[in-house]
Amino acid sequence: MTLSWLSLIVSFILSTASVSGQKLYAPALSLHREDVLRDPKHAVSVSITNDFKTFFFNQTLDHFNYRPESYTVFQQRYLINSNYWGGTNSSAPIFVFLGAESPIDGALTRVGFLTENAAQFEALLVYIEHRYYGESIPLGMSFEEALNDANIRGYFSSAQALADYATIIMHVKEERNASKSPVIVVGGSYGGMLASWFRLKYPHVALGALASSAPVLYFDDIIPQDAYFSVVTRDFKDASETCYQTIANSWSEIDRVAQEPNGSSILSKMFKTCQPLESGDELKNYLIYLYVRAAQYNDPPRYPVTVICNGIDEASATEDGILGKIFAGVVASNRSSTCYVNPPANLSQTALGWSWQRCSEMVMPIGITNNSMFQPGPFILSDFIDECNASFGVAPQPHWVTTYYGGHDIELILRRFGSNIIFSNGLQDPWSSAGVLKNISESVVAVYTEKGSHCLDIISGNQTDPDWLIMQRKTEVGIIKGWIAQYYSDLLAFKQ
Amino acid sequence: MTLSWLSLIVSFILSTASVSGQKLYAPALSLHREDVLRDPKHAVSVSITNDFKTFFFNQTLDHFNYRPESYTVFQQRYLINSNYWGGTNSSAPIFVFLGAESPIDGALTRVGFLTENAAQFEALLVYIEHRYYGESIPLGMSFEEALNDANIRGYFSSAQALADYATIIMHVKEERNASKSPVIVVGGSYGGMLASWFRLKYPHVALGALASSAPVLYFDDIIPQDAYFSVVTRDFKDASETCYQTIANSWSEIDRVAQEPNGSSILSKMFKTCQPLESGDELKNYLIYLYVRAAQYNDPPRYPVTVICNGIDEASATEDGILGKIFAGVVASNRSSTCYVNPPANLSQTALGWSWQRCSEMVMPIGITNNSMFQPGPFILSDFIDECNASFGVAPQPHWVTTYYGGHDIELILRRFGSNIIFSNGLQDPWSSAGVLKNISESVVAVYTEKGSHCLDIISGNQTDPDWLIMQRKTEVGIIKGWIAQYYSDLLAFKQ
Repeated sequence: MTLSWLSLIVSFILSTASVSGQKLYAPALSLHREDVLRDPKHAVSVSITNDFKTFFFNQTLDHFNYRPESYTVFQQRYLINSNYWGGTNSSAPIFVFLGAESPIDGALTRVGFLTENAAQFEALLVYIEHRYYGESIPLGMSFEEALNDANIRGYFSSAQALADYATIIMHVKEERNASKSPVIVVGGSYGGMLASWFRLKYPHVALGALASSAPVLYFDDIIPQDAYFSVVTRDFKDASETCYQTIANSWSEIDRVAQEPNGSSILSKMFKTCQPLESGDELKNYLIYLYVRAAQYNDPPRYPVTVICNGIDEASATEDGILGKIFAGVVASNRSSTCYVNPPANLSQTALGWSWQRCSEMVMPIGITNNSMFQPGPFILSDFIDECNASFGVAPQPHWVTTYYGGHDIELILRRFGSNIIFSNGLQDPWSSAGVLKNISESVVAVYTEKGSHCLDIISGNQTDPDWLIMQRKTEVGIIKGWIAQYYSDLLAFKQ
Repeated sequence: MTLSWLSLIVSFILSTASVSGQKLYAPALSLHREDVLRDPKHAVSVSITNDFKTFFFNQTLDHFNYRPESYTVFQQRYLINSNYWGGTNSSAPIFVFLGAESPIDGALTRVGFLTENAAQFEALLVYIEHRYYGESIPLGMSFEEALNDANIRGYFSSAQALADYATIIMHVKEERNASKSPVIVVGGSYGGMLASWFRLKYPHVALGALASSAPVLYFDDIIPQDAYFSVVTRDFKDASETCYQTIANSWSEIDRVAQEPNGSSILSKMFKTCQPLESGDELKNYLIYLYVRAAQYNDPPRYPVTVICNGIDEASATEDGILGKIFAGVVASNRSSTCYVNPPANLSQTALGWSWQRCSEMVMPIGITNNSMFQPGPFILSDFIDECNASFGVAPQPHWVTTYYGGHDIELILRRFGSNIIFSNGLQDPWSSAGVLKNISESVVAVYTEKGSHCLDIISGNQTDPDWLIMQRKTEVGIIKGWIAQYYSDLLAFKQ
C-alpha cells in the first residue's frame, strides 16, 4: 500500500483539498449537510434572513501581541436579529452563534436552535462569522490571497477567533446597554469546540455554552485514532450485518478488478462514472466519502446509511457480484443522478481553510487500524507533518490544542472547575467518538441520543423530527433556562 | 499645574523610567524590597541557590499565531530544586513560582513560601523566568535591543507569558514522569495576577494558585482611580494623624519655597541633597516615592511608615518649620546616608520592562482625585495614550485585560466558575485596594491581614515575624493542602 493511498484513507475527505499541489484530506467538521442528503421537506424559508441586520466590526488582527502589525484592523461580519429581544430593562439573554469553518450565511437558515427558541427566551440573536471565512477576511484580501500569504494566514487561529468573539460580544453588549444580559454561545462541530472553549476561556463574557457534536477529545493521544471510522463501521453494521460484510469485502474486489488489464475502464463502466476513472483508488475514495458522509449525516427521516444498505442488500447478487451490490448502494443514495463518482467540485473555502487549520493546530490524528469495514490506514504523524510542510511550509503543532484548551483527563479537571457547558452528541455521528459523553459535574453535562447524527440538535426543526430529537432539544433548552434563572438569582443576591 | 507635573504624580514612580526621552512613571508592582527597607536580620542564606539547577527551554516566540516568525524559539530560563520531591510514585506536588517583571534570581532567595513548605509537601520546586526579563530574552538579544525593536518587543505580553509557563510545566511533568502530580502556581504582585489568571486559563495545568497581592481589579473602570493613593494616605494617617497633616501641608510649602528666587538651591540645602535640585518637582517626586515605597513595603518589624512618621513627629517644629519636619522623616528612613534625594539610579529592567507592559496592555489607571495627603493629579487616559505613543509608537489597549482575563463583576462571574485560587493581601499595601478581599466561593478565597504589606506572605519567613503573619501563611498552606487532598481523592475515584 503506498503512502499516498494511506494518507487518502486515513485523513479523509469531504471536499478533496489540493493545496500547493499536495493533497490533504480530512473528514468534514461542518454542520452543513449537502442538499442531496437532506429531506426536501426540511427546507426552511429564506425569509428568515430578512430578520437579520448585517454589521462589520473593526477587528484587531492580532490580539495577543503588540507588534506594529498586530494593531491592523479588518472587517469582521456579524448579524443581529433583534425581533425577539426583551431589551435592556429585562436583562434578556443574548444567544450567540459562533461561526466556524464556513461563511456565516448558511447558519442563518440552517441552525434553528437560536431562531426557534428566541421568542420564549426573548433573546437577542447574534451570529458571528469566523475570521478568514466568508466576508471576514483580513486586509481586504480575497480568501485565496489571504491563505496564500504565509504571514497573513498565520493569524488564522482558534485563539484569535475566540478573542474576536469576545470583543464583538462585549461591543454588542455595550452598544445595546446590555451589560447584565447573560450570553449563551452556541456552536456545532468545530464551532462546538469553540463554544465549549469559549465558556472555559471567557466565563466573564459567556454564561454558558451549547457545544453540539464537538470532538474536543480528538487531539493528541486522548482517544484511539480509529475512533471515527469505528463508529462509521458500527453504523453500517447496525443498519445491516450483510451490508457491512459486503462493504468490508468490496475493497479487495475493487483492487482485484483494478489490477486487471483495463481495470479502471471496467470499473468506470460498472459504476457508470461521469468521467473515466484513473484508478481503483479514485473509486475507493469516492465510496469512503459516500459512507462517511452517510454516517455523519445519518439524519431522520431518510437515514442515508439505511438507504445505502437497502440498496446494497436488495441488489440481485447474481448480476454483478459484490461490486454490483456496492453500485446499487451508490445508486440508492443518488436517485436523481444519471452518472456517478463525480469529479471533485471546486474547492470550497471550508476545505481549503480547514486544511490550513489542521496543518497548523487542529491536528486530529484520525486513522484506521482495525475493527473497521475499511482497509487499514493508520495516521502517521511524521507523514502528516511532511505533507503540511510541503503544503504550507509549517510544522503542525500537535500538542497545542491540549496545552491551551486541555482535553486529557477532562473529567478529572472539570469536575471541580468550570460550569455551564452542554456537550451534545448523536451517537451515530462518528465525531461523537471524540465527544464528551458523560456528565462531568452538575452543570458540565452530556446530552446525547442513540440515533442522532452530526449537529442534528441545533439544525432547524422539521415536522418529521422523531420524539427522541424533540426531547433532546427540550432537555437542552431546559438546562439553559436553569443557567439563566440561576444567573438572575445571583444577580439579585449580588446587588444586595 | 502643568501636564508633565500631573503625569509625574499620577502615574508615579518606583524607578524613574525614561524611554525614548519620554518620562513614564508607575508604582512598582515588584515584590522585591530594596535592602534599605529590609530588616538586616532578614537576610536569607544565599546557599539556598545551590539547591537549584538551571535549565533553558526552547520556547516558542508566538504561541497564538502561525506566521513563519511565530515558530522562532528562544531560550527561556527556569530553575528546579528537587531536594524535597516525593517523586513520581507518590504523585507528589509541584510548586511553580511564576516569575514576573524582573530576573528570576531574586525570587530564589527572597520568596520563601516554596522553599519553606517544600519538605512538608514533598514538593518539586520550579521557578520560571518571565519572557524578556533576566536571561530569557528572545533571539539572543540584550534586554535593551529587544525592547528597542518594535517588532520583537511586540511579543512581550502576558498571554504569551502564561502560555510559556504552561509549556514549561507540561515539559517538566513529562520529563519527570509526573503526569499525575498536582501543580500549584505561586506569584506575587504582577506575578500574582499571572498566577490567578493561569489557574483560570490553564486549569488542566495548574490545580490551584496562590496569588499574593495581585491587583487584578486595577483595570478599566472596575475601581476608583484614587484607590492606591487613598491607602497610602490611610497608612500614614493610621500611623500618626499629625504626621499625615504635616505631609499634607508640605506640598504647598515646597511650591512656595521653590518659587522664591534661588528656591531650588534653598530646598537643596534644606534637604542636604546629593546633587543640586533642578526644581521643586524633583523634590516632590522623591518624597512621593519615599512615602509610597514605605506604605507598600510597610513590613514588620521596622514598619517604615512609622519610622518616617516618628522622624516627622519628633522633629523640633521651631527649627525649620514644616519642611524641617519633612526632612527629619527623610533622615529617619535613611539613617546611613550622608546626603539625600539621590539622583535616579540606572534604569532597571523592571522599570523599563514594566513601562512597556503598561503602555501595551497593563493599563492601570492610577490617579489622585481627593481624600489624599497628596496634591491632586487625575489619571487622564488620553494623556497616557499620548505618552505611550510618543515612547513606543503604540496605543495602549486599556480594555484588553478585562476582555481576556475578566475583572468586572468578578464575584458574580467566579461564584459559579473556577476554583482553587487564594487571593492574599495585606491591607496596608496600597495595591490591596485592587485585590480580591472577599471569599467568592468555597475555593476562590481571600486571605488577608490588617497589617500586612505587599507580598509579605510569600516573602521568606523571619524570626521576628508577628503572629498574624505566621497565621496567614499557615492558613494558606492549609487551604492548599485541602486542594491537594481533594485532588488525590478525585484521582482515586476517577481511576475506579
